[in-house]
Amino acid sequence: MEFKVKSGSRTQLIDITSDVQAALREAGVRDGLCMIYVPHTTAAVTINENADPTVKSDILKILNQVIPFEANYGHMEGNSAAHIKSTLVGASELVAVRNGKLQLGTWQGIFFCEFDGPRRRRVHLHMR
Amino acid sequence: MEFKVKSGSRTQLIDITSDVQAALREAGVRDGLCMIYVPHTTAAVTINENADPTVKSDILKILNQVIPFEANYGHMEGNSAAHIKSTLVGASELVAVRNGKLQLGTWQGIFFCEFDGPRRRRVHLHMR
Amino acid sequence: MEFKVKSGSRTQLIDITSDVQAALREAGVRDGLCMIYVPHTTAAVTINENADPTVKSDILKILNQVIPFEANYGHMEGNSAAHIKSTLVGASELVAVRNGKLQLGTWQGIFFCEFDGPRRRRVHLHMR
Repeated sequence: MEFKVKSGSRTQLIDITSDVQAALREAGVRDGLCMIYVPHTTAAVTINENADPTVKSDILKILNQVIPFEANYGHMEGNSAAHIKSTLVGASELVAVRNGKLQLGTWQGIFFCEFDGPRRRRVHLHMR
Repeated sequence: MEFKVKSGSRTQLIDITSDVQAALREAGVRDGLCMIYVPHTTAAVTINENADPTVKSDILKILNQVIPFEANYGHMEGNSAAHIKSTLVGASELVAVRNGKLQLGTWQGIFFCEFDGPRRRRVHLHMR
Repeated sequence: MEFKVKSGSRTQLIDITSDVQAALREAGVRDGLCMIYVPHTTAAVTINENADPTVKSDILKILNQVIPFEANYGHMEGNSAAHIKSTLVGASELVAVRNGKLQLGTWQGIFFCEFDGPRRRRVHLHMR
């Protein structure tokens, strides 16, 4: 299973909960663990609150502050900060699925984390 | 499988290794991978040393220093720092189980990470 | 499945992609999810770019800057920074395996993260 994500700015958290849920429904998945995997090295995936959109912007604000965009980096592509954020946030998340539904907490959503956009990206899903 | 955790301060690392092990024993689990999942957006779970308790306080000291409690955040609930720490530490951990026992390294324990306490929390366990 | 890693400096990212792939081949693994697990509390594992080696050094540069080696820590072994980095980067990664091959993105490699070297370390692999 796989779906596409299109980011619109340099750093962005994109709620992909309904994309993941739709892919599971299409595949007829019932029970198990769903791995959400990002095959990119300047992006990541996280689980956090999807009720108040300021949570997303606060996360990005501090990440962008703690991991500077410019810092005498050796990597010449200008996106070292994105690689570092990718390692800190992580390339995958696991969520349980029961009766075809993601077993997220009340306030939890799944977010694709763009750290070097805007770009076209992909998300892989694996069930076990 | 599920159990409860009660935190006593704003930020706290709580060793839940024996709770996880006890839940596996009760469920009669023998072999596989155990996912430890936190269904909250201002908490997390991590694996680290459970021999010297100062490791826990050193982890919290630096997290609280790097991710400021107050920082002109947009989220009005006063717990943006907790959401950010939750994304950095992560909502789940995976540990192998063999003959009913968690296959942790010699110095490793599993810690519930409270970032917006004190609160009553829950931890979910899934075997695969 | 298990293999050894030997680090040569205090902090170091070591590409273990081919070690993981070789262990899967030896074990005759075909399809599933591979968990790469670090049983140490002052090391970690991450997925990031393995094309340009400066990505590794940039990641370490910022981690070493954000998490200070010395900071009035309570833990007396002088490696609190390593424990903190271990919690932030994480003790495990999951990668899908198809037809015996790791399903990494084009630029992705798997890195053992040494934060308290030089040391002899181990990496555990579990298939599901």
